[in-house]
Amino acid sequence: MTEFKPQAADWEARVRDSFARQPAMATIGARLTRVAPGLAEIELPVAAGILQQHGFVHGGVVGMIADSAGGYAGFSLMPDDATVLTVEYKLNLLAPAAGDRLIARGRVLKPGRTLTVTSVDVFACTGQEEILSATMLQTLMTLRGRPDALRSPGGPR
Amino acid sequence: MTEFKPQAADWEARVRDSFARQPAMATIGARLTRVAPGLAEIELPVAAGILQQHGFVHGGVVGMIADSAGGYAGFSLMPDDATVLTVEYKLNLLAPAAGDRLIARGRVLKPGRTLTVTSVDVFACTGQEEILSATMLQTLMTLRGRPDALRSPGGPR
Amino acid sequence: MTEFKPQAADWEARVRDSFARQPAMATIGARLTRVAPGLAEIELPVAAGILQQHGFVHGGVVGMIADSAGGYAGFSLMPDDATVLTVEYKLNLLAPAAGDRLIARGRVLKPGRTLTVTSVDVFACTGQEEILSATMLQTLMTLRGRPDALRSPGGPR
Amino acid sequence: MTEFKPQAADWEARVRDSFARQPAMATIGARLTRVAPGLAEIELPVAAGILQQHGFVHGGVVGMIADSAGGYAGFSLMPDDATVLTVEYKLNLLAPAAGDRLIARGRVLKPGRTLTVTSVDVFACTGQEEILSATMLQTLMTLRGRPDALRSPGGPR
Repeated sequence: MTEFKPQAADWEARVRDSFARQPAMATIGARLTRVAPGLAEIELPVAAGILQQHGFVHGGVVGMIADSAGGYAGFSLMPDDATVLTVEYKLNLLAPAAGDRLIARGRVLKPGRTLTVTSVDVFACTGQEEILSATMLQTLMTLRGRPDALRSPGGPR
Repeated sequence: MTEFKPQAADWEARVRDSFARQPAMATIGARLTRVAPGLAEIELPVAAGILQQHGFVHGGVVGMIADSAGGYAGFSLMPDDATVLTVEYKLNLLAPAAGDRLIARGRVLKPGRTLTVTSVDVFACTGQEEILSATMLQTLMTLRGRPDALRSPGGPR
Repeated sequence: MTEFKPQAADWEARVRDSFARQPAMATIGARLTRVAPGLAEIELPVAAGILQQHGFVHGGVVGMIADSAGGYAGFSLMPDDATVLTVEYKLNLLAPAAGDRLIARGRVLKPGRTLTVTSVDVFACTGQEEILSATMLQTLMTLRGRPDALRSPGGPR
Repeated sequence: MTEFKPQAADWEARVRDSFARQPAMATIGARLTRVAPGLAEIELPVAAGILQQHGFVHGGVVGMIADSAGGYAGFSLMPDDATVLTVEYKLNLLAPAAGDRLIARGRVLKPGRTLTVTSVDVFACTGQEEILSATMLQTLMTLRGRPDALRSPGGPR
């Protein structure tokens, strides 16, 4: 795989700090477990509050952690004065999202000045076993001259 | 628009009952506000716990309500002995998911024996004003001979 | 539907001229049959050379006319000094692409300074009858300061 | 990568024969250059008749070879009495489709009784150099009890 060079000196802190400012990730119990240049991994313990009617994790929740994993994979390569926006994503659900926990692994396929394309695989994990449960193809946009925290934390405006 | 004829006599109760068995919808505060043959509408009050780092509703949460709105639009046309599965969806985020509440309106584009395709628009609403915030194209699968509640409620297995 | 205002005075000529410079459209026999601000329609007579193994129009050819219809719907709203690039598209094939001809109707869902999102429906037509055969959701990019004809016509470099 | 076991004894002949019955592939000059269980590779020499207005290969043509590469990757694993149908695909265009030739490499991500999901990468090649030009995520359907050649070859009905 291609090796990517981050543009921001504090790329890792920027990613971790931004993730920590996503209340939606805390609400579902997701944690950022790994960051590397062009890569991000999010882990989500399977819990009652994130299930759908069949007792599996809701496909939209699978999409949430995949969207964030891809977004932070891309953000790790963006410059200092920029923030990230998801333009679109497409998610294929391949196997039931069940087990102990889900792990979403995002990686940059193609970084760009304006647009970045990522691929994310989501695994359904039980102990050491991992089953590919979903895969996403995602397009991100780099917004320059905009801090990553646009609005005061804690509430919508 | 084409008018669809439901196959199940109690299609509306089936949809409302299934939605009520999605803990993930309760976790984010989403409500099913309208059901008709081939249509479903979900409303989500904007609240602190569903935001991302910019103070807007997380794109994955937008995907969650869109996935459910499309899924129940499709499920309303499915036969008695069947349940619904999301095969895949693609979501374009068009404008910030902000305001008082989001409304996801799903409708069936093409029902089929095995596969159903839906389109979902998500609006960002402030008072009476509605702005198109996201749009989804989704593929569903009808699973016959399977009850809609596959596993005992309340927990993963 | 929203009415769009073109930015370029000669928007229609620009669209028709650009379409005429797409050899791939001539190769499959596609014609640009309608242009309006934010809209474009392409017609494709069904012919032996564009079929797949079942005798229907190849799904990739359906994608070609949908991609161009969406692209020119978007291009009609772009400024004078800009050209259009397809970022990505997603196509659902809903019914066999058969009949006398296919008609792809593209319309802009959301124009933007950098990105434009379009929706395209492709109909399979036999005489006066039209059946929805495919639907596309597409993301375009406006490239400013770039003429629409980047390279000399007639050959790759 | 997972190794796949074909179900049909003559899987390779079935794939090659089916490809040969796609007039659309001949029209654009595409050749099937490799088949293995769960894999298919299609090569397309860059020629004047498949270009768009910028002098690159038309994005829809890129989609055509990707659709066929993914479709035949999936078809290689399908049973004797079945044919393949593309349900939907999503294509991201990453770099200009230029050079001597394009190579589309499709592989099965998840085979299934009814649905199969594939991933396809398209490379823009100049001599020995290959640049990732596009990537596709595709959903296929297995149609049982249906021969792969549904209609008499040579013309639409």
